[in-house]
Amino acid sequence: MGKPWYVGYFEGKSWLMNVAFTQDDIRKVIDAAKDLKYKFKAKVPTPYLVGKTLFMLFYNRSLRTRNSFEAGMFQLGGHAHFLSPQDVYTPTLPEDMIPYKTEAISDVARVLSRYGDAIAIRIYGDAAKWIIGRGHRVVEEFAKWSAIPVLNMEDDLYHPFQALADIMAVLEVIPNIKGKKFVVSYAYSGGLKPLAVPQSVAAIAAMFGAEVVIAHPPGFEFVDDIMNKIRELSDTYGGSVTVTHNMKEAFEGAAVVYPKAWSPKGFFPPYSSAVNKDGAKEYQNKFKDWIVTMELLEASGKPYYMHCGPADRGQEVTDEVLDKYEKSLYFNEAENRLHVQKAVMAMVMGSKYE
Amino acid sequence: MGKPWYVGYFEGKSWLMNVAFTQDDIRKVIDAAKDLKYKFKAKVPTPYLVGKTLFMLFYNRSLRTRNSFEAGMFQLGGHAHFLSPQDVYTPTLPEDMIPYKTEAISDVARVLSRYGDAIAIRIYGDAAKWIIGRGHRVVEEFAKWSAIPVLNMEDDLYHPFQALADIMAVLEVIPNIKGKKFVVSYAYSGGLKPLAVPQSVAAIAAMFGAEVVIAHPPGFEFVDDIMNKIRELSDTYGGSVTVTHNMKEAFEGAAVVYPKAWSPKGFFPPYSSAVNKDGAKEYQNKFKDWIVTMELLEASGKPYYMHCGPADRGQEVTDEVLDKYEKSLYFNEAENRLHVQKAVMAMVMGSKYE
Amino acid sequence: MGKPWYVGYFEGKSWLMNVAFTQDDIRKVIDAAKDLKYKFKAKVPTPYLVGKTLFMLFYNRSLRTRNSFEAGMFQLGGHAHFLSPQDVYTPTLPEDMIPYKTEAISDVARVLSRYGDAIAIRIYGDAAKWIIGRGHRVVEEFAKWSAIPVLNMEDDLYHPFQALADIMAVLEVIPNIKGKKFVVSYAYSGGLKPLAVPQSVAAIAAMFGAEVVIAHPPGFEFVDDIMNKIRELSDTYGGSVTVTHNMKEAFEGAAVVYPKAWSPKGFFPPYSSAVNKDGAKEYQNKFKDWIVTMELLEASGKPYYMHCGPADRGQEVTDEVLDKYEKSLYFNEAENRLHVQKAVMAMVMGSKYE
Repeated sequence: MGKPWYVGYFEGKSWLMNVAFTQDDIRKVIDAAKDLKYKFKAKVPTPYLVGKTLFMLFYNRSLRTRNSFEAGMFQLGGHAHFLSPQDVYTPTLPEDMIPYKTEAISDVARVLSRYGDAIAIRIYGDAAKWIIGRGHRVVEEFAKWSAIPVLNMEDDLYHPFQALADIMAVLEVIPNIKGKKFVVSYAYSGGLKPLAVPQSVAAIAAMFGAEVVIAHPPGFEFVDDIMNKIRELSDTYGGSVTVTHNMKEAFEGAAVVYPKAWSPKGFFPPYSSAVNKDGAKEYQNKFKDWIVTMELLEASGKPYYMHCGPADRGQEVTDEVLDKYEKSLYFNEAENRLHVQKAVMAMVMGSKYE
Repeated sequence: MGKPWYVGYFEGKSWLMNVAFTQDDIRKVIDAAKDLKYKFKAKVPTPYLVGKTLFMLFYNRSLRTRNSFEAGMFQLGGHAHFLSPQDVYTPTLPEDMIPYKTEAISDVARVLSRYGDAIAIRIYGDAAKWIIGRGHRVVEEFAKWSAIPVLNMEDDLYHPFQALADIMAVLEVIPNIKGKKFVVSYAYSGGLKPLAVPQSVAAIAAMFGAEVVIAHPPGFEFVDDIMNKIRELSDTYGGSVTVTHNMKEAFEGAAVVYPKAWSPKGFFPPYSSAVNKDGAKEYQNKFKDWIVTMELLEASGKPYYMHCGPADRGQEVTDEVLDKYEKSLYFNEAENRLHVQKAVMAMVMGSKYE
Repeated sequence: MGKPWYVGYFEGKSWLMNVAFTQDDIRKVIDAAKDLKYKFKAKVPTPYLVGKTLFMLFYNRSLRTRNSFEAGMFQLGGHAHFLSPQDVYTPTLPEDMIPYKTEAISDVARVLSRYGDAIAIRIYGDAAKWIIGRGHRVVEEFAKWSAIPVLNMEDDLYHPFQALADIMAVLEVIPNIKGKKFVVSYAYSGGLKPLAVPQSVAAIAAMFGAEVVIAHPPGFEFVDDIMNKIRELSDTYGGSVTVTHNMKEAFEGAAVVYPKAWSPKGFFPPYSSAVNKDGAKEYQNKFKDWIVTMELLEASGKPYYMHCGPADRGQEVTDEVLDKYEKSLYFNEAENRLHVQKAVMAMVMGSKYE
């Protein structure tokens, strides 16, 4: 029978952000994910990682990510360890070490490398001290010391697997998004959410040549380096990037809208001298009208609605949209998490020659 | 070889309470459980749920339930995820939503339905705000939205798998309990315990035509609807139901006694305007003489002793009874949890035609 | 093909401390571990515990232990449950029972014995109330009641699997340590650590006939019974034991040094009338010069450096030693945890005749 072409295709590679790969690489992931999705539904066994172990380190809560990675590993014949920070000595950057309470990431990464086959990490927000970019540094520190692939399950800059699931969900309904209007928009929430999803989604839309529109109130700008990267990707892949402060205008005539909350970065280091959560909340509370309603979607020409979940009902979006809008991709995006993650795991943890 | 008859026998069904099934259905579960128990002891492999995933959501602590479900899934070739509320966004009823901290049960159920094969839930007491029936509503809300079977691992009204394990343990020693005196009795504990076990046990004893005696001090009445259901089942299956306030009298001549603590429901909504835990504790402290001793059992004619565990030693029962009473079914009940749960899982999660 | 000789070699036995076994027994474990290590690296499947379940009860945090046991069980075809005290009713010694919050160890052990194939426990420090020996009593209580093997994942007296991994790492570089100078030394940490590792390591070195030198400041003496046992083992296996209060002198000419922190036992019951953590910390703070540096190792003739991990960087040892010292066995010790544990699990949980 043999294994499918994608098993071991990226053998040994880490997956920290999609922008480190090419459109062609991403297409390969989607192709693999399609095959795995078909086999999952047809109940065809997919024993591509038999006996392999994934270590999942969660510094933040998770429903989709944890369950899709854990179920995915099992469906591939492997096993995933769920590790929460209260159960292990907290793996820590050199400057944050507290003897007998923490353990150096360099040590944790090297020890786990001897026991299993990949390390996956989620860290943002409080766990990353709300210093924007610090969560990503933790992920990079793991990748630096690990002898096995490291997977980014969401940090404070990137959420690559969400963006992979999203682009797969889009391509399932619009086979080619080159030249299509793809809106990544702010939507209000009372909570403080990372910039990872909007940045990763805008980047992957740019990698597929979309006319990317980023809509948000002033103060919700992306991180500069990432914004530059998105513009660069857009040039490379023949699309465009526009920024606007008007949600309604942005939605007008869009093929896809991806409205969700993120935090105004000016209230957090390194963009501020101190973490100012109250200030950020007070500021974002001015934008409660950035909510997605059935009326807005209908007035905009019925674009596909997307959200990584969990959506804040009554803040980011109305119940009606989530439960009744016919062009919502909400559950398809969640579903595809399973398949793109299985794809990347099979590609980086699998072996062609075993 | 083929699969045994019970794999997929109730394919796709949820299991929220035994009273939604018939005596014949329950007998089928016991038959399947017997086969699985035999095979477990004989070390015959039982690969009936290969590649299948169970999501276990625990809002309360657990020893027997968690370990028997998790080991059971593995023994059937599947895998169970242990999910505690602190690790996921708390799945929540619509009226309790807090943006960015909770996630609608409707969303959680639909997302998990895309990743695996069944969802199991435990919720009662504090986790259900001590509003009696609210825990059961959470379980029902999951069942409403889930596309895969939902299993009730104990809520504030029912503990169906405990009652299945119990009736199996009884039938192992008394093949027919029709007409036999089966006592479900209050026994004192300083803690506040749900009504789920006594209600479920009395109901299943009624479904097997026993002469059910429910013994408790005034104020420990079952929920009305369930009491009515028990009377109805008793009529259907040719038994009887009596309520008494005298433990000793109740025990006299019994074939089986099942003495355990539960809470006086009048101190909790909807039977009270507010949750009054202190009042409930103060009230139940009057009944410290409702304890099972060796003397009581001997004076009653040595009935079989049952308890779901964990028993409060020195309150509900003496150490001597738990450790030395020859007609105790305590560990058999715990053991059978594994087998009845494997039976139901094979029946509802399995497929006849795969 | 058949199973290797070691599967079921110690069928049904518990593993609470190495000193209950002989040197020959330990050699058998190492031989089995070598075979399993070779197969792991060569990606040869090792399905010796198919369908078997290990229950892991952690009262303390863990990185190496939890991940090596969980991955190890999976690599052997089995499954490990990760149980933390907040998720189960805390299994408790008779004198510590709190009704409805705790459950008797005797009950927990007997229930789990019906569901799976071994119970592993970690308990020391706060979880054992800092009464030295109490953690070990918990482990023994489990062994007393369990019908399946009990494995000690570290208590307040012994850490047998660490010592097995350590002796394996030593023998990989020095095939015979009889007559070699093997130093178990105190090294400073601000935290309070159990005596389990130094006591277990000194004991296993004595079991292999080494010239054991135990170096520590006054007040850091081992538990008397264990010290006597170490002397006795040393006599039996042809080595020697010396105690010194001078780190530098101890290191001089050593083949192996194992410097790590432990707590001065005089500040804890039964050696003190009350637990005095502050006193212990204040006292140990006098010994900050007990740190391992590159200079010390070089001046001593470059012995092999060992530490069970996690090492407190900047307190027990400098970063330079951990990251650059060429004769460090730090990661080899961690790696061997996986293999010795798989060996013992295959030996005690496996069956020759199945």
